[in-house]
Amino acid sequence: MRVMGIDPGLTRCGIAVVSGPSAPIPGSIGSAKPGFIAADVLRTHPNKDLEFRLAEINTQLNRWVETYRPEVLVVERVFAQHNVSTVMATAQVAGLAMVAAASRGVPVAQHTPSEVKAAVTGYGDAPKEQIQHMVKRILGLAELPQPADAADALALAICHVWRQGSAVATDTAQQTSAQQRWAAAERAARRTGYRSGRGRLGKKPS
Amino acid sequence: MRVMGIDPGLTRCGIAVVSGPSAPIPGSIGSAKPGFIAADVLRTHPNKDLEFRLAEINTQLNRWVETYRPEVLVVERVFAQHNVSTVMATAQVAGLAMVAAASRGVPVAQHTPSEVKAAVTGYGDAPKEQIQHMVKRILGLAELPQPADAADALALAICHVWRQGSAVATDTAQQTSAQQRWAAAERAARRTGYRSGRGRLGKKPS
Repeated sequence: MRVMGIDPGLTRCGIAVVSGPSAPIPGSIGSAKPGFIAADVLRTHPNKDLEFRLAEINTQLNRWVETYRPEVLVVERVFAQHNVSTVMATAQVAGLAMVAAASRGVPVAQHTPSEVKAAVTGYGDAPKEQIQHMVKRILGLAELPQPADAADALALAICHVWRQGSAVATDTAQQTSAQQRWAAAERAARRTGYRSGRGRLGKKPS
Repeated sequence: MRVMGIDPGLTRCGIAVVSGPSAPIPGSIGSAKPGFIAADVLRTHPNKDLEFRLAEINTQLNRWVETYRPEVLVVERVFAQHNVSTVMATAQVAGLAMVAAASRGVPVAQHTPSEVKAAVTGYGDAPKEQIQHMVKRILGLAELPQPADAADALALAICHVWRQGSAVATDTAQQTSAQQRWAAAERAARRTGYRSGRGRLGKKPS
């Protein structure tokens, strides 16, 4: 199964595809081995008008989804407490990615930056370099992922591969009760799209 | 010329098409006579997941642009000081509208709610009912515009018809110096997409 990760942004949008096991393995969180398929950074020029930049990103996002046909598209959850003018454009790029997936019947998932950091480094506030190094190690790459900005999109996809047994599985009969509560919380969060809470450590409800 | 107005929203998205004069009339702000072509409210169900709601709105927006082929698409400018979770989804719908236009070469313009209110009622803080009544009068409708939520999208398109001589004209030789400053400010604002200032009265720089 292919997982596409999107680290949304207007000037730089990280995008990556990672392979994972084809079916959720109950209780296997952290043990599934993800494989590198592709990674890049989509860019638009800050001097262009917003609508053309969004249209360019949209074309590229759709091209990636068409090319790699992922089974899931994971978008980094956008929070509103960041810089206001940046966050609006970031949310718009995230929206385009979700539509590129949903309009083709590809399921969409979201994870917070801290959930991703905690998944790949064990620490929700890990610096960028640590994520790059862990992504390299997890995927068995010979060098740090290039372009460097694509590391977050790779980490996002890895995080989802590791969590799919709990967060995405729809066969509740195979879930533990903690997994079911987590899946229910995920579904509730996806309905509004955004959580207002901080959750900086990205802890799973236990 | 046809102007499409979009009052972006995830649960209710106002959309309208208004006719205006085919070329900017220098110095004619407020004198061009807009005509009613169409108005509606696109809706999605709050219980559905965000990505499906965005995909539905996107399909409908693209259908409207294909059907009415506007010469300009005007989107109400989204501000970040409103409710955070609502504003993110609203910005995403605005982004989809911009891409629906830009990907077909249709120019995009944005006006603030207060600019629109000031244009149709002369008062930047006018209540909803006053806008509905003025839209009815300006367009020569027999009744208040239906659905009522579409009035803002109609007002947005009317505002743009009246402003096109100053805000959209690219032939700077025909612009007064105040119009040129206004057009330059509009272009600068469009580059980032959002203005952080208040500007509650939507005043033109003079």
